[in-house]
Amino acid sequence: MPYYQLALMHRSQPDEVEDNNERLEFLGDAILGAIVAEYLFKRYPTQPEGYLTELRSRIVRRETLNNVAMRMGLHKMVKYNKNDRGLSRSHIFGNALEALIGAVYLDRGFIKSREFILKQVIRPYIDIEEMESTDTNYKNKILSWAQKNDHIVTFDTLEEKMEGSRKLFTIGITLNGEQVSSGTGYNKKEAGQVAAQKALDILKIEQ
Amino acid sequence: MPYYQLALMHRSQPDEVEDNNERLEFLGDAILGAIVAEYLFKRYPTQPEGYLTELRSRIVRRETLNNVAMRMGLHKMVKYNKNDRGLSRSHIFGNALEALIGAVYLDRGFIKSREFILKQVIRPYIDIEEMESTDTNYKNKILSWAQKNDHIVTFDTLEEKMEGSRKLFTIGITLNGEQVSSGTGYNKKEAGQVAAQKALDILKIEQ
Repeated sequence: MPYYQLALMHRSQPDEVEDNNERLEFLGDAILGAIVAEYLFKRYPTQPEGYLTELRSRIVRRETLNNVAMRMGLHKMVKYNKNDRGLSRSHIFGNALEALIGAVYLDRGFIKSREFILKQVIRPYIDIEEMESTDTNYKNKILSWAQKNDHIVTFDTLEEKMEGSRKLFTIGITLNGEQVSSGTGYNKKEAGQVAAQKALDILKIEQ
Repeated sequence: MPYYQLALMHRSQPDEVEDNNERLEFLGDAILGAIVAEYLFKRYPTQPEGYLTELRSRIVRRETLNNVAMRMGLHKMVKYNKNDRGLSRSHIFGNALEALIGAVYLDRGFIKSREFILKQVIRPYIDIEEMESTDTNYKNKILSWAQKNDHIVTFDTLEEKMEGSRKLFTIGITLNGEQVSSGTGYNKKEAGQVAAQKALDILKIEQ
């Protein structure tokens, strides 16, 4: 079966086809990861590794890719068992998009795959600036939630220590005087974000 | 600083250098992941995705890469703080190897990086067949441990159910009649391996 056709075959497809898109998804996922890594490396020449890693994981995570795939119309093309209601709520379209990237790679090579990913996937469908700003909003989120619900939230530096040659900070968050979470990072902002993200999780605050 | 030089700069290096190899490591890790994925995809045209994923994770994991880097002699070239004894026991040489791959990619492009990885890293230093066979040995490991120590270990099928259109198996392992672990997979062998791996962990059996 041609790769492009195979890329759209979910393993649940009802026809008597043996093959499915999972191997292509494995390949496409890796190619996408590499191309997004290079893109971020060059776009943010001064950001540290942790920043690039976090941003990449936001771009390539299942929810993002599935959303992109739906907006590209891939859900109309993927062959899957439509009687299995759970499937259309899972990430099979994003997975098919990865498989499609694998097919493009096998058919056209690395340079063309990069072009495909940048021009057909990232540029039209992924708002990287918005993803960046989401990153810095955990602190704001918990503060505005606290204000709305008449809670007192504080961010406190619990520890500053050296890890090798770098300083490592631990920030704790209290809610009405009780500590709810703490986070560690190479600067206070990063540590505060980690702590805030944990607190949002622990307190089950809608994000 | 030229990329190749930067690739060998661990963040602990004692000189007054601001920059280190972490961004290059981020990039190189992604390039390596893509190239190994393609290599396995083509080398094993009939193996399912799970097999490729597992094998890739064995190849690119920190222990493997660090070992390769040491055999390549990278530990003699990486600049790091040698007074920090913990560092030489961590994976900084494998990380530097990834950074070096990032540097090769930026300098020479994808095709040359692939050549570098296949000819200079994988072929001389990584025994993929051995890695494959390790995979199937968890069951043997626990069985031979049991025999040596006069224990009775059994593998039992606890459940067979459909997940979408595929069958999913759960295998449980008992030690002298007590269940110690269970594992799930798309065939009994896979499920047994998962269960055996967990049991080895739980029972703290040396591997």
